[in-house]
Amino acid sequence: MDSVLRQSKAMCPFMRKATAAGLRAMSTATPAVTSPCGGTMSKLQVLARRCPVMGKAMAIQSARLGHAGGFSGVAAKAAMSTFPGHSKTSKAKLHTSRAHEAQAVDTPVLGGREKVQLPPRIPTKQHVSASNPATATRSNAPVSHGTKFDYEGFYDHELEKKHKDKSYRYFNNINRLAKEFPRAHMARKEEKVTVWCANDYLGMGRNPHVLKTMHETLDEYGAGAGGTRNISGHNKHAVELEGTIAKLHAKEAALVFSSCYVANDATLATLGSKMPDCVILSDSLNHASMIQGIRHSGARKIIFKHNDVQDLEEKLASLPLHVPKIIAFESVYSMCGSIGPIEEICDLADKYGAITFLDEVHAVGMYGPHGAGVAEHLDYEAHAQGRPRGTIMDRVDIITGTLGKAYGCVGGYIAGSAKLVDTVRSLAPGFIFTTSLPPAVMAGARAAIEYQMEHQEDRRLQQLHTRAVKEALRARDIPVIPNPSHIVPILVGDAELAKQASDKLLHDHNIYVQSINYPTVPVGQERLRITPTPGHTKEYREELVNAIESIWSELGIKRTSEWAAMGGFIGVGEPNAGPEEPLWTDEQLGIAEAARTLLQAAEAEQKLETHNTAAGSSVVMPGLTERLLEREMKGLRSASVSA
Amino acid sequence: MDSVLRQSKAMCPFMRKATAAGLRAMSTATPAVTSPCGGTMSKLQVLARRCPVMGKAMAIQSARLGHAGGFSGVAAKAAMSTFPGHSKTSKAKLHTSRAHEAQAVDTPVLGGREKVQLPPRIPTKQHVSASNPATATRSNAPVSHGTKFDYEGFYDHELEKKHKDKSYRYFNNINRLAKEFPRAHMARKEEKVTVWCANDYLGMGRNPHVLKTMHETLDEYGAGAGGTRNISGHNKHAVELEGTIAKLHAKEAALVFSSCYVANDATLATLGSKMPDCVILSDSLNHASMIQGIRHSGARKIIFKHNDVQDLEEKLASLPLHVPKIIAFESVYSMCGSIGPIEEICDLADKYGAITFLDEVHAVGMYGPHGAGVAEHLDYEAHAQGRPRGTIMDRVDIITGTLGKAYGCVGGYIAGSAKLVDTVRSLAPGFIFTTSLPPAVMAGARAAIEYQMEHQEDRRLQQLHTRAVKEALRARDIPVIPNPSHIVPILVGDAELAKQASDKLLHDHNIYVQSINYPTVPVGQERLRITPTPGHTKEYREELVNAIESIWSELGIKRTSEWAAMGGFIGVGEPNAGPEEPLWTDEQLGIAEAARTLLQAAEAEQKLETHNTAAGSSVVMPGLTERLLEREMKGLRSASVSA
Repeated sequence: MDSVLRQSKAMCPFMRKATAAGLRAMSTATPAVTSPCGGTMSKLQVLARRCPVMGKAMAIQSARLGHAGGFSGVAAKAAMSTFPGHSKTSKAKLHTSRAHEAQAVDTPVLGGREKVQLPPRIPTKQHVSASNPATATRSNAPVSHGTKFDYEGFYDHELEKKHKDKSYRYFNNINRLAKEFPRAHMARKEEKVTVWCANDYLGMGRNPHVLKTMHETLDEYGAGAGGTRNISGHNKHAVELEGTIAKLHAKEAALVFSSCYVANDATLATLGSKMPDCVILSDSLNHASMIQGIRHSGARKIIFKHNDVQDLEEKLASLPLHVPKIIAFESVYSMCGSIGPIEEICDLADKYGAITFLDEVHAVGMYGPHGAGVAEHLDYEAHAQGRPRGTIMDRVDIITGTLGKAYGCVGGYIAGSAKLVDTVRSLAPGFIFTTSLPPAVMAGARAAIEYQMEHQEDRRLQQLHTRAVKEALRARDIPVIPNPSHIVPILVGDAELAKQASDKLLHDHNIYVQSINYPTVPVGQERLRITPTPGHTKEYREELVNAIESIWSELGIKRTSEWAAMGGFIGVGEPNAGPEEPLWTDEQLGIAEAARTLLQAAEAEQKLETHNTAAGSSVVMPGLTERLLEREMKGLRSASVSA
Repeated sequence: MDSVLRQSKAMCPFMRKATAAGLRAMSTATPAVTSPCGGTMSKLQVLARRCPVMGKAMAIQSARLGHAGGFSGVAAKAAMSTFPGHSKTSKAKLHTSRAHEAQAVDTPVLGGREKVQLPPRIPTKQHVSASNPATATRSNAPVSHGTKFDYEGFYDHELEKKHKDKSYRYFNNINRLAKEFPRAHMARKEEKVTVWCANDYLGMGRNPHVLKTMHETLDEYGAGAGGTRNISGHNKHAVELEGTIAKLHAKEAALVFSSCYVANDATLATLGSKMPDCVILSDSLNHASMIQGIRHSGARKIIFKHNDVQDLEEKLASLPLHVPKIIAFESVYSMCGSIGPIEEICDLADKYGAITFLDEVHAVGMYGPHGAGVAEHLDYEAHAQGRPRGTIMDRVDIITGTLGKAYGCVGGYIAGSAKLVDTVRSLAPGFIFTTSLPPAVMAGARAAIEYQMEHQEDRRLQQLHTRAVKEALRARDIPVIPNPSHIVPILVGDAELAKQASDKLLHDHNIYVQSINYPTVPVGQERLRITPTPGHTKEYREELVNAIESIWSELGIKRTSEWAAMGGFIGVGEPNAGPEEPLWTDEQLGIAEAARTLLQAAEAEQKLETHNTAAGSSVVMPGLTERLLEREMKGLRSASVSA
C-alpha cells in the first residue's frame, strides 16, 4: 500500500500537492447538493471522478460492487466514512449470503484433502482459503488441516472481530411500563428510566382500546393461533385485520406476516424470483429486510442513489420496456428521517413500465388523515374527504407496513391488488410455512389501526413534540441531522463516543437512547436516534435536552457549529442546509391559526420562557410550540375525561 | 416426448413388453425396505437403476438435482409421484430463489431491446426467455415485447397454474375457542366444529397459567415490545424466556426469534455463509425453513436420504475432515411422524468433525420428562433425575424449537453454546433487524415451558389419545402411515379426493381436518393429518373415526387392504411394515402396570366394549387404551380440582 501511495503521489499532479489533513477534510466535506442521509459523494469523490485514471477505476469498482459512488485505491481509506448506502463494508455484514448460490450435490465431489475443489469465493479478510495456509495464519482464523474444524474457535473469532470494530452489541434491559408511558424499569424494578428511542411512536402499546380488545380475545380464543394459515391458523382475526389494512390503504387486499421483515423478504423474494427476468431497483438506503428479499429473489438488482429520481430514471431508461421491474423504496427512512419522493417514483414507474414497492413501516399510523402513511399524507385533503381514487397512494402498487411500531403490537403486512396478494399468499414460503400471529395480537393490531383511522390527536401531538425537541436541540447547537419527519437523529460521528453518550444518558440521567452504530449506519455516521411520542411532555423534553447538552460538553462531542467549520457533514452544518420543512405542515397541525392567537397573547404578556440548563447556559425554549402543546394537552385531557 | 417414448420402447427389451398400467403400478409400489415417509424408491426406480442406459442417466440427474433416487427420461413421468424428498417438482415451488445469486450492477448493462443480456437461467416451463418468443406463446405467459410487462396478467397466470394443479389453497375460517377446546367456530359463531389438525398439541393455548401470565404482562408492560432487541425491545421477558429455554435443553444459552421459520432460516444462513467453505448436509424431508436457510447461506448443500445414516455417512466420509459441516435434520417430521436417528447422527458428527442442527419443532413439550423433545426422551431416566451431561441432548450442538405449537403461543428459538448463540445474535439480519415479540407472548411462552417442565399429564394423555385413534383407525382398515410419534397421517393419495374428504368432514360432520396437498407433501402422497390432543376425549374420537369410516366408503378412498393388494405404499399395507413401536413406551406411559390391573378387572367382568358405527359395521374399540384413558381422566379431574 505504501509503495502504491508513493507511486500515485509521484505520478498525480493533485496527489503530489495534497496533504493528509486536506484529503481528510475533503473526504468528509460534501458538496451543496446533498440528501439528508449522506447518500451523496464527498468532495474527494467528486474530484476523483474527474480524474482520467481514478474516474475509470471508480466506474469499474462501482459496477462491480453495485454502489453509487464507490472507488478504490489511494483515497478509498480516507473516504470510507462517506460511502453511501450499500457500501462495501456495510454490505459485508448486512448480507449473510456469499456471492454464489447454494449448490445441491448428491454424489461426493470432494475426493480427499489433496483434491479439494471448493466453490469459487470472493476472498475476504476473514475467509481462510484451504489452499493458502499463509492467510490462515495471518487472519488468526481457527482452521488447521488434517484436524476437525474448531467451531467454538470460529465463534470466538467472529465475536472478537465485533468487539474490535466496536460493532458488538450490548442489549439494555428495558421494561416499558404501560401505566407510566414513556417510563420503563431496568433489570431492577426500582431502577426507572425514560425511554426516548422506542418505535411505539404513538404509545398505542398502552392504548386502553387496544388492551381491552387483547384481553377479551385472549380469554375467548386463547394464547396462540395453533397452526399455519392453511392448517387451522386462519380465523376471523386474520380476515378482519387484513380487511382493515386493505381499507386503510384503499387497496383491494392485504396479507399479514410474522413481521414486516418477513413481509418484505418474502414478497420481494417471491416476485423477483417468479417474474421472468425481473429487475429490482433498490434505493441505496433501503432496510436490511428489503436487501435480503432482493438477494433471496436471485433477481438482477440495480441500486439507485438515495432519493435520487434522476439517477433512478437513468437506470430505468437503460432497461427494456417489456422487462418486469420493481422499484423498492421507503417513505420514511428510519435512521435519518428522510422521506422518499413517492409521486416522482410513481411517475417513473408509469413511464417505464415498473411497479412500485413502498415500505411505509415508519410512517403508518403517523402520517395522513387516517394514519395510512406518507403516501396518504401527500393527498391529505382528498383522503380526509374519502376520495382515494387517483391519489398517489392509489398509484403505489405494493405498500408494506408494520403492526409493531406506531400500532404498538407486532407483525407486518403487504397491501395491493387482489391478484398480487393472492399470488404472494400462494407462493411465498415465508408466509405459507409459519404459524399465524396469535388471535389477540391480530385483534389488538386491528383495534390500533381503527383507532388511529378515527383519531388525529396522537400523531399531531407526536409531531408537535418532535418539533419542540428539534427546535430545542438546534437552539443549543446540538447537531440534528435535518429531515422532514418525526425522527430526531443526533450526529455523533464516532462509535465509541456514541456508546459513551448513550451509557451516560442511561446511568447519569436515567434516559434511555440507544446509540446507533455500524452496521445499522455507516462507520463515521454513528448517532443517537431520538423518537418523541405523545407521552413526552414538557418535563421529559427539558430533561432530555439538558442531559444531552451536558453530555456533549462532558465528552467533547462535535456541535453543529464545529461540523459547519469543517464544511458540514450529511446535512449537519452545511452552508445552505437549513432545517427542512416538516411534512406535517403548520396548517395540517392547526398551527397557523393558533399561532396568531398565541403570539398576540404572548406579546401582550411580554414574556418569553427561559430555562437554565445544568451547564448554566440559558436558552430560549421554543415558546410557540410549547404554548401550542399546552393547549393541545388541555384538549386531550378534556377529551379523555369525556371518553 | 412421444417420439422419445416410441424410440425407447423400440430399443429397450423391458419397455417393449411393459404396459402403461404395469408401469403405473410399479411406480407406486415400493420394495419392502422403506421409510415411513416415502423417502424410498419405487419398484420402477429400482429396476431402472439396474439398466445400463437408464442407470447412468439416473446417476447424472441425481447428482445434478441433488436428490437420492431421481432419474429422467421415459419413466420419469410415471414415477413422478414417488419422487422422494426434495423432488424436482417440490423444489420448484419450495425454493423461491433462482439457481443464480443476486447481482448488483450500478452501471446500465442493458442497452436496449436488441442487446438484452440477461443472466443465465435454468429454463423452466413458466420462464419466458426474451430471446425465444416461441416459448412465450407456448406457455401463455403474459409477456409481449415493446409493451410494458403485464403484472396483473402475470399474477393471474401464476394463480391459474395453482388452480390447474390443484395446489391452490382455500383457507378455512377456524376460531378455536379457549373455553371449549378442542372446539372452534367458523365464520358464524353458531357454526361449531371440532378441530382435529391444530398444532396446539397440548392445549396450552388455553392453559389457565399461561393465560393468567399473559393478562398480567399485558396490563403491566403493554401490547408490543416497541423495538428491535437492540433498540428498546430487549427486556426481562426476553432474558427470562431465553434462560428458561437454555435450562430446558440444558444448554448454555438460547435466542428467541419471531418464529422458528425465521430461527432456522437465519441460523443456517448465517452459519453457512460465515464458516469458510461450509457444507450443509440436509435430510431429504427437512422443513421449508431449513431448505430456505441453506439456500440463503450460499453454502454447499448435500442432501442425504431421509433418516438414512448409511447414506449420510458415505457423504460425510467424502468430505475433508477439516471442512466445517452442519448436519441439519428434525426429530419429528411433521407430515409423516417419522423420527430422526439422533444418536447415530451425533456419532457420525463426532467421527467426521461436523456439528448437528436439530429441529425439535414438533417435539418440544411432547417428549422427554421435561418436554425438551425427542433428544431428551432418548435418555428419559437420566433427564428425569436431572443428569443431562453426556446425554444425547447434551451432544446435539444446536437445537431449534417453537413456542407456537405444543407451547401454544408464537415464536421460535435456538439453543446451544454461549458463543454459538452470541455469534448468531451478533450476525443474523433476521434476528437483528426485526421487532421483538410482545412481552405478553414471551411471558406466556415461558409460563407454558415451565408448566410442561413440571407436568407430565398433558403429553401422556396426548400419547394415549394418539394410540387410541391409531388403533381405532387401523381396526377399520383406514390407512394410517405408520410412525412412532404423535402424528396420525391418513393416506389418501389424491389431491382432489383429499380436499373432498376434508370438505365432507367439515360440512357433513363438523370436524375440521385440513387436507395436506402438494407442495407440503409430494404429489400422490396427499393425506389427512390428524393431531390428537389431551382434549380429544372418547366422544370426539368416536365421532372422528365414524366420520372417516363413512367418508372413506362414500368417496371410495383406498383402504389399507387395497394398498396392500398393490404391494403397499410409503409404509401403508406393506407386507412387513406393522404398526411401529411408539417412542413413548408402555412403561413410560405407566401402561405396563395399569394394564395388568385393568385386564384382570376386565376378564373378571367378561365384558368387552363394542360400538356400532354409522355404517352399521361393528368393531371392538381398543378397550385397554380406553380404560386407561378413563383412569387418567379421573386423575386429571381430581388434580384440577385440587389446583
